[in-house]
Amino acid sequence: MKEPLILVVNDDGISAPGIRKLISIMSDFGDVVVVAPDGPQSGMGHAITINATIRCDKVTIDDGPQEEYSVSGTPVDCVKLAVNEILNRKPDLCVSGINHGSNSSINVIYSGTMSAAVEGALEGIPSIGFSLLDFSHDADFRESEKYIRKITESVLKNGLPDGVCLNVNIPKSKVSDRIKGIKICRQAKANWVEEFDQRKDPNGRIYYWLTGTFVNYDKGEDSDEKALENHFVSVVPVQYDVTAYHAISELNNWIDNE
Amino acid sequence: MKEPLILVVNDDGISAPGIRKLISIMSDFGDVVVVAPDGPQSGMGHAITINATIRCDKVTIDDGPQEEYSVSGTPVDCVKLAVNEILNRKPDLCVSGINHGSNSSINVIYSGTMSAAVEGALEGIPSIGFSLLDFSHDADFRESEKYIRKITESVLKNGLPDGVCLNVNIPKSKVSDRIKGIKICRQAKANWVEEFDQRKDPNGRIYYWLTGTFVNYDKGEDSDEKALENHFVSVVPVQYDVTAYHAISELNNWIDNE
Repeated sequence: MKEPLILVVNDDGISAPGIRKLISIMSDFGDVVVVAPDGPQSGMGHAITINATIRCDKVTIDDGPQEEYSVSGTPVDCVKLAVNEILNRKPDLCVSGINHGSNSSINVIYSGTMSAAVEGALEGIPSIGFSLLDFSHDADFRESEKYIRKITESVLKNGLPDGVCLNVNIPKSKVSDRIKGIKICRQAKANWVEEFDQRKDPNGRIYYWLTGTFVNYDKGEDSDEKALENHFVSVVPVQYDVTAYHAISELNNWIDNE
Repeated sequence: MKEPLILVVNDDGISAPGIRKLISIMSDFGDVVVVAPDGPQSGMGHAITINATIRCDKVTIDDGPQEEYSVSGTPVDCVKLAVNEILNRKPDLCVSGINHGSNSSINVIYSGTMSAAVEGALEGIPSIGFSLLDFSHDADFRESEKYIRKITESVLKNGLPDGVCLNVNIPKSKVSDRIKGIKICRQAKANWVEEFDQRKDPNGRIYYWLTGTFVNYDKGEDSDEKALENHFVSVVPVQYDVTAYHAISELNNWIDNE
């Protein structure tokens, strides 16, 4: 029987510890091809490279069995390039991450990790984005492994509903608060309140750093934030049809259509 | 009575003819503040600038009454900077565009124009993205004006449902095919089939240009693509909650939650 073909991508760059861990896990499930950005692409959302050229180099980073390509574009570019130029058949699975930091709640729309998974779903590939709630470069991915294996097994076995990918966030494990299990959730209603950090350059000209505070307005029990707070792995099914169907009839009353 | 405060943004850059037209239309509705990228940012999706600094300069481009700021970031950065640093109260309306080119169907998720509108909605501002189905720099925005005025009037009068912004696409008008009216629609099921254009640089090294063909798989009568094909302005209500609610129960059966 042919091994599953697994495409691995991320947004922290091809040499980030998170993707190296994901590659090593995926190598147990099938033939792995890595197509990932040559440097950090966090916060790139669903950006694509339209007005610039893209480079793509075959690279060897460790002694694993995978094939790897380093790309000068965004996470979404990587998926498009993999599917249309590099792979000679459609992958059985596309996994993105492991992101260093949360992509829960509203972060899903800013996240390069999740946009790569959404692009995989658009290409008709069962796709999962994995993120660990730890921003640090030397985050500890050991306890994540069990849950990544479990979810990967399920998706390889059952597939995913059409037009849907998974946004998986994994709590940071502490000795006192071990991970309790997995919960299927909805995206929490939360937001970033920005606080731009205004500075002056050596010539006295003003510039800004984007910074902010995450605010969770959601009191519900079924949100991803609540699951993570209670030390569960959150799994949110994510769709790329962003139509607000509930608003259509209201808008029909509201506008003069002529 | 205080004039409405209107934030104008785009993704083609502050000097693009589309935004200049939108500014002149909006000046009839209230006090306009423009916060827009200093150059083209098409295809930036919901990207934000995390790993670099942002510049913001007050500029004067024409002799209109508006205040204008040119920003070295993405369309989403512009909205965040406007709301948190530049404006001293929350705008009554955020409009993005007029984009040179379509943002119908799946283009909504790649579009900087629409991501700015989504970010406006996230900030609690009634927000609209306007796009004309003409990529050319010297696109004719004259017939668009009537529909932009009509939709703007409705939104200023009625507001928009919580968590929803509008994706407005306007067909290219021809003498033989005048615009017939406005239709409230859903996002068509369509996709880009990529064809990377592979070239060699003067040193013989390979590089790529992203290119592709838009393929509409949708046979429905209520999609934005169908409305545009029939020479109607399409209005799709867009939400930033991307949870696939219909998939939650299926996934609950499907995974071992321990």
